[in-house]
Amino acid sequence: MISNSMKKIVENSSAIRAMFEEGERLASIHGKENVFDFSLGNPNVAAPEMVRDAIIDILMHEDTLMVHGYMNNAGYVDVRKDIADSLNRKQGTDFTEANILMTVGAAGGLNVILKVLLNPGDEVITFAPFFGEYTNYVNNFGGVLKAVEPDLKHFQLNLESFEKMITPLTKAVIINNPNNPTGVVYSEDTIKSLADIMNRKQKEFGTSIYLISDEPYRELVYDGVEVPCLTKYYDNTIIGYSFSKSLSLPGDRIGYLVIPFSLDDYEDVFDGACAANRILGFVNAPSIIQRAAARCCDEKTDVYFYDENRKILYGALTDYGFDCVKPQGAFYLFMKSPVENEVEFCEAAKKHNLLLVRGRAFGCPGYVRLAYCVSRETVVNSLPAFKALAEEYGLIK
Amino acid sequence: MISNSMKKIVENSSAIRAMFEEGERLASIHGKENVFDFSLGNPNVAAPEMVRDAIIDILMHEDTLMVHGYMNNAGYVDVRKDIADSLNRKQGTDFTEANILMTVGAAGGLNVILKVLLNPGDEVITFAPFFGEYTNYVNNFGGVLKAVEPDLKHFQLNLESFEKMITPLTKAVIINNPNNPTGVVYSEDTIKSLADIMNRKQKEFGTSIYLISDEPYRELVYDGVEVPCLTKYYDNTIIGYSFSKSLSLPGDRIGYLVIPFSLDDYEDVFDGACAANRILGFVNAPSIIQRAAARCCDEKTDVYFYDENRKILYGALTDYGFDCVKPQGAFYLFMKSPVENEVEFCEAAKKHNLLLVRGRAFGCPGYVRLAYCVSRETVVNSLPAFKALAEEYGLIK
Repeated sequence: MISNSMKKIVENSSAIRAMFEEGERLASIHGKENVFDFSLGNPNVAAPEMVRDAIIDILMHEDTLMVHGYMNNAGYVDVRKDIADSLNRKQGTDFTEANILMTVGAAGGLNVILKVLLNPGDEVITFAPFFGEYTNYVNNFGGVLKAVEPDLKHFQLNLESFEKMITPLTKAVIINNPNNPTGVVYSEDTIKSLADIMNRKQKEFGTSIYLISDEPYRELVYDGVEVPCLTKYYDNTIIGYSFSKSLSLPGDRIGYLVIPFSLDDYEDVFDGACAANRILGFVNAPSIIQRAAARCCDEKTDVYFYDENRKILYGALTDYGFDCVKPQGAFYLFMKSPVENEVEFCEAAKKHNLLLVRGRAFGCPGYVRLAYCVSRETVVNSLPAFKALAEEYGLIK
Repeated sequence: MISNSMKKIVENSSAIRAMFEEGERLASIHGKENVFDFSLGNPNVAAPEMVRDAIIDILMHEDTLMVHGYMNNAGYVDVRKDIADSLNRKQGTDFTEANILMTVGAAGGLNVILKVLLNPGDEVITFAPFFGEYTNYVNNFGGVLKAVEPDLKHFQLNLESFEKMITPLTKAVIINNPNNPTGVVYSEDTIKSLADIMNRKQKEFGTSIYLISDEPYRELVYDGVEVPCLTKYYDNTIIGYSFSKSLSLPGDRIGYLVIPFSLDDYEDVFDGACAANRILGFVNAPSIIQRAAARCCDEKTDVYFYDENRKILYGALTDYGFDCVKPQGAFYLFMKSPVENEVEFCEAAKKHNLLLVRGRAFGCPGYVRLAYCVSRETVVNSLPAFKALAEEYGLIK
């Protein structure tokens, strides 16, 4: 009796749940400490203490009717101003509160902006491998997600295929920088070429093609790599951001959209986003966490912790003969399956109590994703299991 | 360049904003204390102190990774259990955590359940006057909202018209008890008759017709009136609840759905609601506030405060000759416009610095809504303005 579109999604969710339940089953047999769950992007670094202090201070000293009350659907004006100022300090931009819309995480923000932009049948392009939820977000509003085939050499953007995929129906392009699941950061050169193509196609078709940059991992970068600020390269850019990873607040559901003045139809898009935030049922981003995020938006999570996990894991896995994409950001590692069918490989890994995610969930079969936002112990203790797995596949020379 | 559906909604929102701006303009001329804004359902009673204490205690004593982390899309198991237990104590029901899904307020919950149920073209019936956002919520998923004409005598449910409106395409019925905008509570007799009709029509058409009861005002009732617990009267009932009014936490965005075992396809509906919470971008209800709401779910707001406002306002307005529906719940008063076109009457009221909302926003032209969740001062000081307005229309005898 549930809707047809939800039926399929529920079946899919059941498959994911089956995997979790399998993990729990393994833990009950072998002990939790002997099961190495790399399947979830749930940070293992605690939120900075400043977040706790900020919330308590807000509750003790700010006007309680204001702290718990409705505000503009875009969020508190002072919060939006603080965040714009912080971005301007870090990125040399000149945003104001009129460019910031507070959202229920990045997932809320992406749904809001897609609701604003998409007519049924409109096309949205993204690049494989990509975060699988994009398909659902685009489908929510009758849009069609088209994925550009992966660049299996460097996992940058396959721009040649991309250019061919753009049509007059292309309303938006989503990129995820740093990328989930590969951990790759798209370079300035790649972004410049992307912008060139999109500008050219806008002219050719006389359309507006919006670039939606999903950036929850913006601050999680290693080896001094920089994430280009996309609004500087392409006028029709909208940024989606979340504090889920940078402040370890995924459960609190807080993020924002950056909607720059340079955007075609800026005013309609911003007003539309306010209205969409309302009618999709978010109404506004959770109020206390909005105020806390504004106070803490210059705080950083412990990037060093993730970096150590990355080095240990990447070092060991390549040493064992696995073919891995070297992550420059986020907390994911993308590894080639030693056999073509990565589902088979995931099953074999499970026998060593290693829980990995299939690449096909990201539009890239033949690979697996490891989320290394786990404890150091999990990383270190998993290595013998990975070594045994490598031996099983004859990778160790 | 924004979508066609959003264009209309943005235009509509602009009209609402224009009203707010007019209020601000009036305040800048006459002083804020001389403008009587009855347009917004934003509680003027502070959240109970227990909410603040609970949040601080959670931050100081619970595991920080758990408090800020992802959990099941349905919400924390212990939170859902606490809420089920509280409902069972109050209502004599026997819900478990498997019947409770934590949501981003009632607005989030309604969107989730409509996403689960509706195929494009499905019909949803509600009763005028109704909360105007229902139209948007139903349209979000391609559904069609049909409104039963109001019962202008008692503002109960017009069941004769309702029965005729049900077709094989009717997937759901939404009622709002106590009602926004009238403040009327539907009696047990009304609910029994409603259930009878729906049961009969389910049999006739061989369909499941879900009753969605939107109950953010459940605890706000006066004169000892009781709000019937609808799951007892009709098996296919889903309840949407919010702590926005009962704990004065509208900005925090916290509520829940009750999905009873008695529901047709209970399992698919519950699993579907979890998946819908995820893919609509809510992911989960905000985590800290989930935990705080569980601790405070037996707390009550200051109903006495609203009741006093109600008595003062209802007493004075009827005294001045206005024709008002006597509110038994919520914090709204629905008043007949002395002229057929209530838009004209709202404009006349504005000249007395009284801000009212047009009945047509609730599918009931010829009436206006007053939200009396304002300060006592606003209520008392507004009376001379209402009196002058009544005199202008020749109502005072």
